[in-house]
Amino acid sequence: MNHNNSYDFETIREEALQNILELLDDKKYFKARDEILKLNAPDIADILDEIEQEEGEQAVILFRLLPKDISVDVFAELSSDDQIKIVNIITDKELDYIIKELDFDDKIDILEELPANVVDKILEKTPKNERKMINTFLNYPDTSAGSLMTPDYISLQKDWTVERAMRHIKEVGMDAETIYTCYVKDAGRKLIGIVSLSTLVVSDDNTKIKDIMRTEYVYESVYNDQEVVASDFVKYGFLALPIVDNEHRLVGIVTVDDILDVIEEETTEDFERMNGVLDFDTVERDYLDISVLRHVMNRLPWLVILMVSYVVTGSVISKYEILISDQSSLVVYMPMLMGTAGNTGSQAATLVIRGIATGEILTKDVFRVLSKEFRVGAVIGIVLSVLNFFRIWLLEGQPSSIAFTVCVSMLAIVIFAKVLGSMIPLIAKTCKIDPALIANPAISSISDTVTCMTYFTMAAIFLGV
Amino acid sequence: MNHNNSYDFETIREEALQNILELLDDKKYFKARDEILKLNAPDIADILDEIEQEEGEQAVILFRLLPKDISVDVFAELSSDDQIKIVNIITDKELDYIIKELDFDDKIDILEELPANVVDKILEKTPKNERKMINTFLNYPDTSAGSLMTPDYISLQKDWTVERAMRHIKEVGMDAETIYTCYVKDAGRKLIGIVSLSTLVVSDDNTKIKDIMRTEYVYESVYNDQEVVASDFVKYGFLALPIVDNEHRLVGIVTVDDILDVIEEETTEDFERMNGVLDFDTVERDYLDISVLRHVMNRLPWLVILMVSYVVTGSVISKYEILISDQSSLVVYMPMLMGTAGNTGSQAATLVIRGIATGEILTKDVFRVLSKEFRVGAVIGIVLSVLNFFRIWLLEGQPSSIAFTVCVSMLAIVIFAKVLGSMIPLIAKTCKIDPALIANPAISSISDTVTCMTYFTMAAIFLGV
Repeated sequence: MNHNNSYDFETIREEALQNILELLDDKKYFKARDEILKLNAPDIADILDEIEQEEGEQAVILFRLLPKDISVDVFAELSSDDQIKIVNIITDKELDYIIKELDFDDKIDILEELPANVVDKILEKTPKNERKMINTFLNYPDTSAGSLMTPDYISLQKDWTVERAMRHIKEVGMDAETIYTCYVKDAGRKLIGIVSLSTLVVSDDNTKIKDIMRTEYVYESVYNDQEVVASDFVKYGFLALPIVDNEHRLVGIVTVDDILDVIEEETTEDFERMNGVLDFDTVERDYLDISVLRHVMNRLPWLVILMVSYVVTGSVISKYEILISDQSSLVVYMPMLMGTAGNTGSQAATLVIRGIATGEILTKDVFRVLSKEFRVGAVIGIVLSVLNFFRIWLLEGQPSSIAFTVCVSMLAIVIFAKVLGSMIPLIAKTCKIDPALIANPAISSISDTVTCMTYFTMAAIFLGV
Repeated sequence: MNHNNSYDFETIREEALQNILELLDDKKYFKARDEILKLNAPDIADILDEIEQEEGEQAVILFRLLPKDISVDVFAELSSDDQIKIVNIITDKELDYIIKELDFDDKIDILEELPANVVDKILEKTPKNERKMINTFLNYPDTSAGSLMTPDYISLQKDWTVERAMRHIKEVGMDAETIYTCYVKDAGRKLIGIVSLSTLVVSDDNTKIKDIMRTEYVYESVYNDQEVVASDFVKYGFLALPIVDNEHRLVGIVTVDDILDVIEEETTEDFERMNGVLDFDTVERDYLDISVLRHVMNRLPWLVILMVSYVVTGSVISKYEILISDQSSLVVYMPMLMGTAGNTGSQAATLVIRGIATGEILTKDVFRVLSKEFRVGAVIGIVLSVLNFFRIWLLEGQPSSIAFTVCVSMLAIVIFAKVLGSMIPLIAKTCKIDPALIANPAISSISDTVTCMTYFTMAAIFLGV
């Protein structure tokens, strides 16, 4: 192992990849396998993905040479494209083993993404009671707490001693992330308390569970959206949260490692939506794996919607064609005014959208936000107007009437755009529309039209046309 | 407790807040305290923050009435503004208690944000060896692994038995998040292995630590950036990672709950930077707490930089003033072309920036990205051109020469903007500049200018001017 300060896993992975590709070229499969086994499962999955892209089939051969237990961990980390390729090539026996050994939550994730015929093939061979549970889990909405949870958790009884509880944990022994909080249920499977493994470890052997369990705890409904669950994890810093049904029966737990993936997914969605990329495909996929056609489908709707708004802006402009052909230097400042309005509005929208997402800005704060943005807009508007007045009048030698037209418009539209940009996300939130989805198209279309109207109205006034 | 399906903590907190405000109005402080104690520390901190905004001093009174141990947890969750207010009002004895009881990593976070005179006051009363350690920790760069870690972790020795190790853990007993992975060091304090509490719990009492510890593990250098640390947490799904110095000595650990905060912070920064908001203040603050002046300072630089680019665009346009006054209907389509170029470029940039952030797109993928965006741009450009040709020629009754000018320009600039938008983040990455910071200003300035030049050149050709 490299104990160097500048040690980084990306470099190591890149070196390993080159090494393995060479070994594969020489058909030294077992040496390649030994090389890849030096890495962690997520890195092995990354490397197989890259081999798949460069050498195709070789990736599957290498996958099949992995020790069985490791192949399961690696399979769980692969992209769904690669999973499908592997499922189609490996024997039924190999597939059975993988499906059997996968953690329950990974199994559900994978079954959700595989084609129906493959899922049927897998379910056929699953014992009946597990098949029933899988079907229940598959039926939870795609982005609900139910779709994230695992039914593998440690149940304790309130009358047990710590010693008995520790023995029980030793017997059922489970994955690291699911063992650290234990759950206490009553006879009706209702959740009555939680106790952490660290509390158990530091408590006396004879202490009763009911005396150390916490009865005030945070939990989530199985139908809560994954965004709500994620923000509670961030807020409280938990490692796991219990998920209950309508009768407060414990149905599963969500662990923090899955939440990290949810946060990454939700962040990507927000980024994309704010910048006009919609993803209609519910299966999460990587940029490079998405086809050209799907990229077009994801991006075209927003551009076409904006087309409609440009038609409106265009028709405003066409009303002033005589003014424009008379005073064509007005056109020189149009891109600046329209661009600045859009940019300044999107600054305000970004801050408010992020404030809403992190829970800092609530609907009731609307007047505080309004007042702040009005003042921020006024200051920025004045600064930009003064700067532009000198540029246009002194540097570019335009008549002061043109400079006045531009600067008064600038002040008005910057204030307008700040207020608009900050209010649209709050309005969207009230209407239960995702603010990230609606903000930028709404801001550009409204601010473009308002900018043109303001500018040409001012021009008509100041230029006395 | 409410066992309702639609149970949500925001509503509960809001009800509690109203309740407490009424009790405070009636000067029923102890009743208010009992009410607030029904909540978790992060919620108590939120409510105190709201009381502070509405009733000022009352928040501090309420804080001082909290049981000592809870007041420490609540203090750690407060915003730094509120912390400073409390530090200035409470007695030295109260402050000593809080500082003494805070988790080490929270203590460092708070000391980093408090004014120097308050920090000195606190450090004076800290025992010498702890003071030394605090100073070491305060010296790690602000966004490094060193600034996130805590020195509170469990050390085991490789020759201990599991039974001895469990006894040791019971004796030192620590916070939940730091207990779940234990670290094995050699005589020179070098990290030689890790063992999880779950492994200890399920192992036989007489097993030696060296036989169950993992010697291949992921770790981070103390100088690694927090973004690198966070992305390893996301990738591997760890609960904690060991942090080592240049000699591979274990100096601390970073836990996943702190990483959740880092991810939120880094996401906010990326969102803001992509939309032209810079935050010069290293102390993290909330939107509503930031003054109007600071909001202006955060947003003005980007707008002023773009002004310069609008001057360039404006000077391109002014070269065509004669053409414009002759064919003023050309102006009608300018906002559409410039807006579409900017939007389509920022779609491409968003996908590439996000791909870089999640590690999916590497520098070596540049040609694959280029080829994909070229094709996506061509398809989108053709669709938008055809749509517009019919609108301009058939619906608006413009001469086909104008329609041709607009449509050929549209195709060219959409392809150009897609390629530009996807390449700028990759170029920025190669130059070690944050892609989120540079992408949008660079795209708008370059694409505005190129759009105007293309459009008027086409106009000169098709309109035969």
